[in-house]
Amino acid sequence: MTSQGSGIKKLLIANRGEIAVRIIRAARDLGIRTVQVVSEADREMLAARMADEVMVIGPVQAAKSYLDIDAVLKAVSESGADAVHPGYGFLSESAEFARRVSELGVTFCGPDAATIERMGDKVNARTAAIEAGVPVVPGSDGRVAGLDAAVEVAERIGYPVMIKAAAGGGGRGIRIANTREELIAALPTAMNEARAGFGDDGVYIEAFIRNARHIEVQILGDGTRAVHLFERECSLQRRRQKVWEEAPAVALPDSVRADLCAAAVRLAEGVSYRGAGTLEYLYDMDREAFYFIEMNTRIQVEHPITEMITGVDLLREMLLIMGGEPLSLKQEDITARGHAIEVRINAENPDKNFFPAPGVLETLKVPGGPGVRFDTGVCEGDTIPPYYDSLLGKLIVWDRTRDAALAKLAGALGELQIGPKPTTASLHAALLMAPDIISGSVSTLWLEDWLATRAEDIRKSA
Amino acid sequence: MTSQGSGIKKLLIANRGEIAVRIIRAARDLGIRTVQVVSEADREMLAARMADEVMVIGPVQAAKSYLDIDAVLKAVSESGADAVHPGYGFLSESAEFARRVSELGVTFCGPDAATIERMGDKVNARTAAIEAGVPVVPGSDGRVAGLDAAVEVAERIGYPVMIKAAAGGGGRGIRIANTREELIAALPTAMNEARAGFGDDGVYIEAFIRNARHIEVQILGDGTRAVHLFERECSLQRRRQKVWEEAPAVALPDSVRADLCAAAVRLAEGVSYRGAGTLEYLYDMDREAFYFIEMNTRIQVEHPITEMITGVDLLREMLLIMGGEPLSLKQEDITARGHAIEVRINAENPDKNFFPAPGVLETLKVPGGPGVRFDTGVCEGDTIPPYYDSLLGKLIVWDRTRDAALAKLAGALGELQIGPKPTTASLHAALLMAPDIISGSVSTLWLEDWLATRAEDIRKSA
Repeated sequence: MTSQGSGIKKLLIANRGEIAVRIIRAARDLGIRTVQVVSEADREMLAARMADEVMVIGPVQAAKSYLDIDAVLKAVSESGADAVHPGYGFLSESAEFARRVSELGVTFCGPDAATIERMGDKVNARTAAIEAGVPVVPGSDGRVAGLDAAVEVAERIGYPVMIKAAAGGGGRGIRIANTREELIAALPTAMNEARAGFGDDGVYIEAFIRNARHIEVQILGDGTRAVHLFERECSLQRRRQKVWEEAPAVALPDSVRADLCAAAVRLAEGVSYRGAGTLEYLYDMDREAFYFIEMNTRIQVEHPITEMITGVDLLREMLLIMGGEPLSLKQEDITARGHAIEVRINAENPDKNFFPAPGVLETLKVPGGPGVRFDTGVCEGDTIPPYYDSLLGKLIVWDRTRDAALAKLAGALGELQIGPKPTTASLHAALLMAPDIISGSVSTLWLEDWLATRAEDIRKSA
Repeated sequence: MTSQGSGIKKLLIANRGEIAVRIIRAARDLGIRTVQVVSEADREMLAARMADEVMVIGPVQAAKSYLDIDAVLKAVSESGADAVHPGYGFLSESAEFARRVSELGVTFCGPDAATIERMGDKVNARTAAIEAGVPVVPGSDGRVAGLDAAVEVAERIGYPVMIKAAAGGGGRGIRIANTREELIAALPTAMNEARAGFGDDGVYIEAFIRNARHIEVQILGDGTRAVHLFERECSLQRRRQKVWEEAPAVALPDSVRADLCAAAVRLAEGVSYRGAGTLEYLYDMDREAFYFIEMNTRIQVEHPITEMITGVDLLREMLLIMGGEPLSLKQEDITARGHAIEVRINAENPDKNFFPAPGVLETLKVPGGPGVRFDTGVCEGDTIPPYYDSLLGKLIVWDRTRDAALAKLAGALGELQIGPKPTTASLHAALLMAPDIISGSVSTLWLEDWLATRAEDIRKSA
């Protein structure tokens, strides 16, 4: 059997679910042996069945297993793994974990601890962006010293403004103030929450952009050189969690696309980035301007849509780079073709405020055909444990045009049989009927508004 | 929901198994209603479960169901279908079927009866190729009148030669003669066999090319214009049945590729071709020359590898054209990316001379991940009937390079769980270890030789 070479011989996967399966497949194609660590709840999960070795590292609670650095490191040492892939979530953006993995002489599949620390701190990331000449959202250049400084910044850039925790992420630790009074009322609370939630009461102020799209650019870097793999649009969010993602972005002028991507490469090379990363931007539809908001120093849930349009296996490239190879891709080798959409199938009830719906997955029939991909960490008959996030699978479709991709998504959702517990598949089927989705006329606030209207309709018809 | 328009409203699928599922998916994405006809054996098959309507047209025997023109036409009339898709095999290349479908005022998804007749007859197809300036294998220009004429042709072009039935196909009705004596002995038998097998004793003589690759070019035509979608290589054959296919062809000089593809478009436009078709060539590795051998006037089993490299949904394009649309693709819109491989998973025992192995499919776990596609007409728990061909599914992989695609195929084959009966999956896993496969150094005779050696090894070790 042929395979590309990788400096990695044995990879420990410090994650679970669909991303663990995804990592195992990428490793396998490179001839890398895999070790899957699991909590007591996950002994039988698909990734554990697929990996070459399985190690139980703790009880069902994530804090005592997947988030327990000591437990994971013990497994790394005992397994003889020479590399660790953290996936997304859990320890993937923990600089401490990255550092301690390195101290064992083991490769952490991601940037080094210093880069995670720098880019994981939103204030530092903003400074790095400014240094690289990448536009940022108007706001305080760093943490605000206190109430007076916050008010001063807000009056300079104009309301509404956001108060954001410097150490926050994933939509947590954000408050919006529409007036000076609201800002004065919210700031002390925001700082207290930041201290409680992230152990750091630092906050910063940013202009709040009403009519925004969430656009992000995928990059790969080898520490010297970086390339972009075009952008994704993730404007459909609920509680700042992405629900539906597309590549390329809808209705983005070509010149803006080129600028966004070039800025991402500039910033990545500016911090000598190594691994896969994503630069998140807001695109202000009113001003036709984009602003860097943050960087994710890891692989993302929505990476497959980039794979579908570029034909680049991002996990493989990541493993090759972390194995010591220089970037195998030149920018001119990377072309985008067609349109891809990913919808997240969560074990949640979209008609009951997204209440979690774990349990036995009695039925899972996966759709197929050209341009249809279903990434999952579960099989029919498996039990979805209640302890972790609710992502059951990702339905990804590709076609030559966005219209064709929407039609294919409708067909694939119709083919998907999943149950008996509710999932967000029904939400996506409903979204496909919405004229704004069909035309792509959405902003980052659209989904919340639509869900509120839908909840009202459901209430009335009940 | 958005979809491209098609003039077809209701499509009857006159086929079964994986290609029926494939056609249903393409129709569904275009908003076309589907009617699946089935034999008594196939009432519960996946395509029947997926179609909007199901009609039982006859008993288990194909001759009294899928091959029974009257039975199929009755279903067409009763269902109100305005189009019929014949898939491959069965009635797909029956000019009579095409004609009688048309006589009902219903669209036959393929070229008209006259084109099927013309291109389905190898002698006529050869004449059409010569008229379009497409090279053909040296041989008799048409049927040979008798023994003397056959010998004259053979002595002119040199031995070895093939005696082929003018009305034959699928590798049936072919004999090889290495000397004048062998030709004289074989010709009467060949003519008798041709009359018995195809109702027509016409035969023709062709040079036998020892060191050949089987290369074929996919085309789409709307009756006025045609485009090619690059080539496939199908050199790995057993008893002239394809086993493993790749796109693009391995080790084909770029200038030859361009000539092959241009010749295919020329020939398709020369016969005002409408629908999807394939021009099959032999590439003579010694002379670096190619020769047209025959045209298939239907979709082919191996079409997915072309879809993987071009991103064109061939079934959809076929349905759009047959619905009355002009060809939606310009030649310059069609680009090839990466490398795709398809291996056929048959319900046969490759260690017991490919003896059929129908029965209950207790286990079917399909591989997944980027660039992996599994086209099948069965699900876990289904029963494979013994009455039809043994194709269970097609494992198709795509990657940026051939080496990466081979590695991915190995991984996907490892992931595929299928049983308990034997399948050809184990054969493909063994082929992946063969140095000639890894280097792509094969000819149309390679697989038979390799299988003979393998059978000998199995015998010795028994």
